[in-house]
Amino acid sequence: MGIQYKLLQKEKNTNARLGEIHTNYGTYETPMFMPVGTQATVKSLTPEEIKSMNCGIILANTYHLWLRPGPTVIEKAGGLHAFMHYDGPILTDSGGFQVFSLAKKKEKDIVEEGVHFKSHIDGRDLFLTPEKSIQIQNQLDSDIAMSFDECPPASASYEYLKQSVERTLRWAARGKKAHQNPRQALFGIVQGGAYEDLRKYSAIETVKMNFDGYSIGGVANDGESKEDMYKAIAYSIPYLPEDKVRYLMGIGDPLDIIEGVILGVDIFDCVLPTRIARHGQAFTRDGKINFHNAKYKEDFTPLEEDCDCYTCQNYTKAYLRHLVMTGEMLGSRLLSIHNIRFLVKLTEELREAIRKNQLLAYKEQFLARYQMPKK
Amino acid sequence: MGIQYKLLQKEKNTNARLGEIHTNYGTYETPMFMPVGTQATVKSLTPEEIKSMNCGIILANTYHLWLRPGPTVIEKAGGLHAFMHYDGPILTDSGGFQVFSLAKKKEKDIVEEGVHFKSHIDGRDLFLTPEKSIQIQNQLDSDIAMSFDECPPASASYEYLKQSVERTLRWAARGKKAHQNPRQALFGIVQGGAYEDLRKYSAIETVKMNFDGYSIGGVANDGESKEDMYKAIAYSIPYLPEDKVRYLMGIGDPLDIIEGVILGVDIFDCVLPTRIARHGQAFTRDGKINFHNAKYKEDFTPLEEDCDCYTCQNYTKAYLRHLVMTGEMLGSRLLSIHNIRFLVKLTEELREAIRKNQLLAYKEQFLARYQMPKK
Repeated sequence: MGIQYKLLQKEKNTNARLGEIHTNYGTYETPMFMPVGTQATVKSLTPEEIKSMNCGIILANTYHLWLRPGPTVIEKAGGLHAFMHYDGPILTDSGGFQVFSLAKKKEKDIVEEGVHFKSHIDGRDLFLTPEKSIQIQNQLDSDIAMSFDECPPASASYEYLKQSVERTLRWAARGKKAHQNPRQALFGIVQGGAYEDLRKYSAIETVKMNFDGYSIGGVANDGESKEDMYKAIAYSIPYLPEDKVRYLMGIGDPLDIIEGVILGVDIFDCVLPTRIARHGQAFTRDGKINFHNAKYKEDFTPLEEDCDCYTCQNYTKAYLRHLVMTGEMLGSRLLSIHNIRFLVKLTEELREAIRKNQLLAYKEQFLARYQMPKK
Repeated sequence: MGIQYKLLQKEKNTNARLGEIHTNYGTYETPMFMPVGTQATVKSLTPEEIKSMNCGIILANTYHLWLRPGPTVIEKAGGLHAFMHYDGPILTDSGGFQVFSLAKKKEKDIVEEGVHFKSHIDGRDLFLTPEKSIQIQNQLDSDIAMSFDECPPASASYEYLKQSVERTLRWAARGKKAHQNPRQALFGIVQGGAYEDLRKYSAIETVKMNFDGYSIGGVANDGESKEDMYKAIAYSIPYLPEDKVRYLMGIGDPLDIIEGVILGVDIFDCVLPTRIARHGQAFTRDGKINFHNAKYKEDFTPLEEDCDCYTCQNYTKAYLRHLVMTGEMLGSRLLSIHNIRFLVKLTEELREAIRKNQLLAYKEQFLARYQMPKK
């Protein structure tokens, strides 16, 4: 039946919780970070590499797979797992976020039935509805599907958000009705910006529909402040049931993961580790570093001395910098391995801190060393 | 002392030979195909992947490493092997081919001392001499270094080639004198276009200098006909000693490898398998295929049914096409794995055919199935 969440332990001094998700492809502990495989591939990496980093669920994007290669091809391949050769759990998003972020403002028209917009690849007219999103995800045969929601910009007014929350609730009900894949879980999404009453209302009404898990959406738009993000989480969490998993969509900054866990979030996803890798950047315990910096030219130490990833075990900063400066694919790949492992390891440590009821001490320790990323 | 070649068996009906090369990093059988790691990385692949394909020697480019990161950085790293984390044998070219092919005609000036030219990266003035090329290769600490030679275009006249052969001989002598790395073998290069007397003269005079191995150069320029390439090999081989290895530079087309082996060549290198991979193309027993072709959209069979490579063992043509069409790095990577393994496996089969004195039958069988690559 898709997934089941089991609460193992609540941390004493925060809202954090240790849990486990039972999936069609094994059981994994939460809090957890999910790498993103937009086009049915976590950029540059093989499924075996993903697994060797101790990842659990990975995410694939419904919008992109709808356009290429199309859900019918993936269905004929035997579903997403067989298509991409990944025998671990997969979550698909609804396509909503991409529709709202990739299509230009003038090129989309939101109506009650769904959203008209233009393909970001060839400009052709497309129409995505709650039913269509679920139908595509049913065909993709992911382990967890997401409800189709409206993702208003961070600048949206209270009035707009209020109506948008209502529409997202109607769309959630329609999607739930359309859902047909018994092997696939379906999550509801809480919206409502940084407004306490809207988040509360959205959470309560979404939970009434009894989904298999709940997401907190509308926090990864451009222009949102960290303060508003933390508010959105704090205002939503109290109304979500303890026996269902909580997923904060699109967030992967190390500090946000720590804060999210403290507020009660169980799973996170983000393109950040692979995207910054392609830009020659890497996470470290001392903050983000950029390999374009000449100071690494003759630095023959590993990216991180105490990291257990393949990259840190086998390569020096000088070589990584050389790969970045020459634009070599292996550079993106080695930095992606490190960055994903960095976030996965962070969640491993967060779980350990929850187990010991020492999460706040862990946060303090982490922050003392971690510098804010240089822009 | 760098390398030693041991002739194991001569094929009865051709000039082909089975041999082994003893290197600082193990012993490998010939005929052999060497993948190219231009910037101290075989594009998109790790050293572990290279080894898992049963590769022996790999090639790195002196010209590129001279410019970035510079030989001093690599020397400080402990040499090329430590720098790129490869504990197998490495051959470096002299930089000559890149100087002659990357620099525009008007931007280089060939004088007796060496070649003045402009960097293809930032346009700055550079000067490469036989001594400088060897000094850089000494610093890189590859297992096999190449003499610095002049690489005239395929269109060069007999008169020009004659003088060029003389210059290459003088440069070879200067490079040999400058060579200082006792762990590193040094090869001489036979030039002379498709002229029998020039090839003969070049081979005899180069062999007099007693190098550790001999290359046949000037066959991978744009505009050379296959006929001229085979002539260049056939005219050079008779004058090369049996107890030294013979290396045909820059050639990796499957049919050329077979022909080269029949003519007596031991090692080959080429960027072809990784380059065509980046263009969405793959070698198969039935000829080269292009994944942009829509016919692979719903083809859920492996790239090659009987191939033992990681790609063919785990992925379908439909997925490979999807990766190619979406420009995903994993596509280049998976096709590179297959293409390199294809050529390495071809040399394994050629060795087996030599062992059984059935090389001509093998060639016939291969050609019957292999279609000429579609342009």
